[in-house]
Amino acid sequence: MNSITIILGSASDKLIFDKCKTILDEFGVKYDVHIASAHRTPEKIDEIVKNSDSDVFIAIAGLSAALPGMIAAKTIKPVIGIPVESKLDGLDALLSIVQMPPGIPVGCVGIDRGENAVLLAIEILALQNEELKAKLKNYREKMKESVRKADIEAKNW
Amino acid sequence: MNSITIILGSASDKLIFDKCKTILDEFGVKYDVHIASAHRTPEKIDEIVKNSDSDVFIAIAGLSAALPGMIAAKTIKPVIGIPVESKLDGLDALLSIVQMPPGIPVGCVGIDRGENAVLLAIEILALQNEELKAKLKNYREKMKESVRKADIEAKNW
Amino acid sequence: MNSITIILGSASDKLIFDKCKTILDEFGVKYDVHIASAHRTPEKIDEIVKNSDSDVFIAIAGLSAALPGMIAAKTIKPVIGIPVESKLDGLDALLSIVQMPPGIPVGCVGIDRGENAVLLAIEILALQNEELKAKLKNYREKMKESVRKADIEAKNW
Amino acid sequence: MNSITIILGSASDKLIFDKCKTILDEFGVKYDVHIASAHRTPEKIDEIVKNSDSDVFIAIAGLSAALPGMIAAKTIKPVIGIPVESKLDGLDALLSIVQMPPGIPVGCVGIDRGENAVLLAIEILALQNEELKAKLKNYREKMKESVRKADIEAKNW
Amino acid sequence: MNSITIILGSASDKLIFDKCKTILDEFGVKYDVHIASAHRTPEKIDEIVKNSDSDVFIAIAGLSAALPGMIAAKTIKPVIGIPVESKLDGLDALLSIVQMPPGIPVGCVGIDRGENAVLLAIEILALQNEELKAKLKNYREKMKESVRKADIEAKNW
Amino acid sequence: MNSITIILGSASDKLIFDKCKTILDEFGVKYDVHIASAHRTPEKIDEIVKNSDSDVFIAIAGLSAALPGMIAAKTIKPVIGIPVESKLDGLDALLSIVQMPPGIPVGCVGIDRGENAVLLAIEILALQNEELKAKLKNYREKMKESVRKADIEAKNW
Amino acid sequence: MNSITIILGSASDKLIFDKCKTILDEFGVKYDVHIASAHRTPEKIDEIVKNSDSDVFIAIAGLSAALPGMIAAKTIKPVIGIPVESKLDGLDALLSIVQMPPGIPVGCVGIDRGENAVLLAIEILALQNEELKAKLKNYREKMKESVRKADIEAKNW
Amino acid sequence: MNSITIILGSASDKLIFDKCKTILDEFGVKYDVHIASAHRTPEKIDEIVKNSDSDVFIAIAGLSAALPGMIAAKTIKPVIGIPVESKLDGLDALLSIVQMPPGIPVGCVGIDRGENAVLLAIEILALQNEELKAKLKNYREKMKESVRKADIEAKNW
Repeated sequence: MNSITIILGSASDKLIFDKCKTILDEFGVKYDVHIASAHRTPEKIDEIVKNSDSDVFIAIAGLSAALPGMIAAKTIKPVIGIPVESKLDGLDALLSIVQMPPGIPVGCVGIDRGENAVLLAIEILALQNEELKAKLKNYREKMKESVRKADIEAKNW
Repeated sequence: MNSITIILGSASDKLIFDKCKTILDEFGVKYDVHIASAHRTPEKIDEIVKNSDSDVFIAIAGLSAALPGMIAAKTIKPVIGIPVESKLDGLDALLSIVQMPPGIPVGCVGIDRGENAVLLAIEILALQNEELKAKLKNYREKMKESVRKADIEAKNW
Repeated sequence: MNSITIILGSASDKLIFDKCKTILDEFGVKYDVHIASAHRTPEKIDEIVKNSDSDVFIAIAGLSAALPGMIAAKTIKPVIGIPVESKLDGLDALLSIVQMPPGIPVGCVGIDRGENAVLLAIEILALQNEELKAKLKNYREKMKESVRKADIEAKNW
Repeated sequence: MNSITIILGSASDKLIFDKCKTILDEFGVKYDVHIASAHRTPEKIDEIVKNSDSDVFIAIAGLSAALPGMIAAKTIKPVIGIPVESKLDGLDALLSIVQMPPGIPVGCVGIDRGENAVLLAIEILALQNEELKAKLKNYREKMKESVRKADIEAKNW
Repeated sequence: MNSITIILGSASDKLIFDKCKTILDEFGVKYDVHIASAHRTPEKIDEIVKNSDSDVFIAIAGLSAALPGMIAAKTIKPVIGIPVESKLDGLDALLSIVQMPPGIPVGCVGIDRGENAVLLAIEILALQNEELKAKLKNYREKMKESVRKADIEAKNW
Repeated sequence: MNSITIILGSASDKLIFDKCKTILDEFGVKYDVHIASAHRTPEKIDEIVKNSDSDVFIAIAGLSAALPGMIAAKTIKPVIGIPVESKLDGLDALLSIVQMPPGIPVGCVGIDRGENAVLLAIEILALQNEELKAKLKNYREKMKESVRKADIEAKNW
Repeated sequence: MNSITIILGSASDKLIFDKCKTILDEFGVKYDVHIASAHRTPEKIDEIVKNSDSDVFIAIAGLSAALPGMIAAKTIKPVIGIPVESKLDGLDALLSIVQMPPGIPVGCVGIDRGENAVLLAIEILALQNEELKAKLKNYREKMKESVRKADIEAKNW
Repeated sequence: MNSITIILGSASDKLIFDKCKTILDEFGVKYDVHIASAHRTPEKIDEIVKNSDSDVFIAIAGLSAALPGMIAAKTIKPVIGIPVESKLDGLDALLSIVQMPPGIPVGCVGIDRGENAVLLAIEILALQNEELKAKLKNYREKMKESVRKADIEAKNW
């Protein structure tokens, strides 16, 4: 099975990585995790991208979140960006990640939305992996079930 | 080769589709195009998603841009959303698309950024297609070349 | 007397529902409450809308708050949306709910403003119900009285 | 059949009223139209509200758009507000209308969204009018048809 | 000496009034304080304005802060508005107060800035009162002194 | 009769001054007009303020609009600021003017709202001038009349 | 005399460069101009920075404006960023440039403010160049003179 | 070695100064610290600027943050502004500082970003100081080392 490479701009974004990890573990998907700053260790990004044989990159970054774009600049594999809330409610990171210029795409998920970045990555991997496809369907079913259960409990509110 | 399904929320978003089409034609990627509104023809989204054998969905929508999320709710294939500028500089569409709740991922590209949505979709298809991989590398090279040429011309500014 | 159907996008929005319930109980208006996610259980929305004989729908949702619009897409009864604050001070939910495209209306109330959604629904029901009309007038009088009392107390600040 | 009262804060908002009128005429709904400013002629609002026997009020206003809230303060009938874009992309009018304090509800539609305000008003009137109900269903069908037609035409793009 | 009339939209804005009171007491300026809601007790505003012989009105309001504009609509005396932070960091109240339409002026101070509203009011009263003028000059001197003292203390940081 | 001193941050703000002038001429109020930049000619502000015997200052400024605050720092007379739209829809100028720190008040009017700045200044002058008071009442009456006339014309829309 | 290196993210930002050039020519400061995209030609940035012996870098970029930060990541010389307006009134570029993480500084000037970026760079060069210091003083004097002239002309408005 | 002059708009901004001090002490750079308010003690700014022989000014200010611009108006030495978060997430201070009019430059760093203001100032001083250059390179190396260490630790997350 192919893997996902997750890069955090800073160790302080670990809480968002934890959301990623929960999904990764639940799906049993292999991953690498790195800390590499677009601004403090730009050369490290090159190195990680070159040495990676992952199919998808996930980048977690706050503030002037250049990391996802910098990874996308170095690879033709899909890159998913997670904006992290730190100042301005995360609007700075969101706009820095999503407003990429034409030619170098990044797929941005919601602010602090680690789960969705991984699920999107798994949807990509699942295109060539029937087992992951089945797990995704199952995951959706469990979500539905949990909403249905909450719906029943709401009768007693 | 696998294909891409593009869905516009309204025929008035054709200008953004045109940006998509330019890239699709350049890469020779097959695609279907549909107009289906999350609010006016929600049942059509079901139908398109069920009948599609594309690997990736691209949704183009403005205002309260529910379309990408509605498609994502119906498929476990990757969904890419393009927010369209119409009111509030497109901030409404951007936030509607990118701020998905946990569990149902959408990868959002920049406002009106049709090219990047298609390029991201092609990067996903290219994971299982060496020809597309080569074309992506070539596309990047041409972009680099064009920047280098502009750089030389700038000497005469 | 006709009833109101309230749908929450997630059980985590219960605090806003509680504001609704306080008013509903005070006015003695019948209601159904459901949890149904536009993105996680879209088919449930169809089901709830089809089985409901309520006159008004109230939808409570945060983030990319597609729920009110999705309900409005399925009914010609009035739909009222309550944006919930979760990220970006609730601006994402507000714009997702209020910026509906032409043809499918949603009446949006303020962020986290559960009371007002129910009061607006009751104003609609009251058009054909003299008892509710009287209760609304009484409610307004009590509000006025409470402001007047606060005004008198302010003399001692 | 009951009627709708539309109040514009200024004659300069006529373009938004025109969107209202198109729908009103199409549905054959009776309406009154008034120009009355919350700030320049506040006493006129009292007068219009007192003399009206309409079931629904629609208020169109820009900038510090106090008009919808001022009407809502004087009536227990449902009030729908339309924020008009003039400065700050209409964000000022949107927030002025939608962020009503608890107790006095206004249902806000999208910026410049005259059609939806009237459609929401008609949905309210239709609760007690089978003919309007049929017209609303028909209107929705025509919208669906028009999206379907656009979908077919898109095959030739 | 002429007086200032302060109107709060809600007793919950008392903290901002307290900032006003500190300055009023320091300057020994007479004032009336009222609680009157633009939306819940609009008729009370008329009454307060008519019965007041103050030279300046100060209005404190949050959310869709119609109060300052409503007072300005009823008087040709200067009205100063204080936006209160409650949702959206107070941006809703700020825009509701400051973006008045042409013809009915309100002078808006900063979010939660009770002191400045009163100081501006006193500057207006001082135009015809030499004692207040002297007190204002003295207040400025004390501020300068306090900054100078802080400057000296900063040497030890 | 006392006068008003108007200071523009730049000759490019003349269009906003023109709105001021229309009102000033209509009311027959004396005024001085100056161009003085908070950043380019700060010493000129001192000079203008010291030499002025006006009762009110109006400052017109865009971008990082420090001018109103700089005038307020030099006088204990009331200062009214007009934010000018140039970048970011004028939000930069609005926040720069309205968010003054405690101790130095500025009364801010709406973006590009020259008329209201002058009307607020005249309301201040009118506190000691019965003729201006009468003119203000008359101006309000004419506005009301003009809204009433527009209301009648709207019957033919 | 030391020089300035100006890097544009795209040839489409030439209008902003033209503002830079006007100042550079007026001051007779040597400069290099390059086009190099943080995302399309990241390796070119390395090359330019390594080969440059300029004292200051100026980066002009729009959208997700990673360029200034990417330059700053490669040099310990001062880097000045100019956000370019393209989408969202330039707010995306402004936040991308100004919100740099701790450790890698960029000095950001106003949106589209090419003149000021160059003037700031010249102020830095002038610290070791008496001729530039004199030119800067002279430039300031001319600005003052031009404001003073406009002030006199305003008497005839 | 040349020095840096740091001016705070208020003693309440000390926390941001502390970030500055940590870097200043680490680099052994001389500095002066002052508290001087653009609005409360404008004349003090003149005095500080005239008496300073520093090469760079750093200004720390919140709200309507006129301080950096006011310093820039009085000197042709480089001025760096630090916007402080207090209301509106610091957006008011950011826009007040960064949106300077043409002619008077300020280099703005991120919200509350004291470290970067000092690092930028040191980069300017280092242009004529080999020792500082070496310290800057060393600082960068230590940052890289710390990111690399965090990267290794992340393997155990």
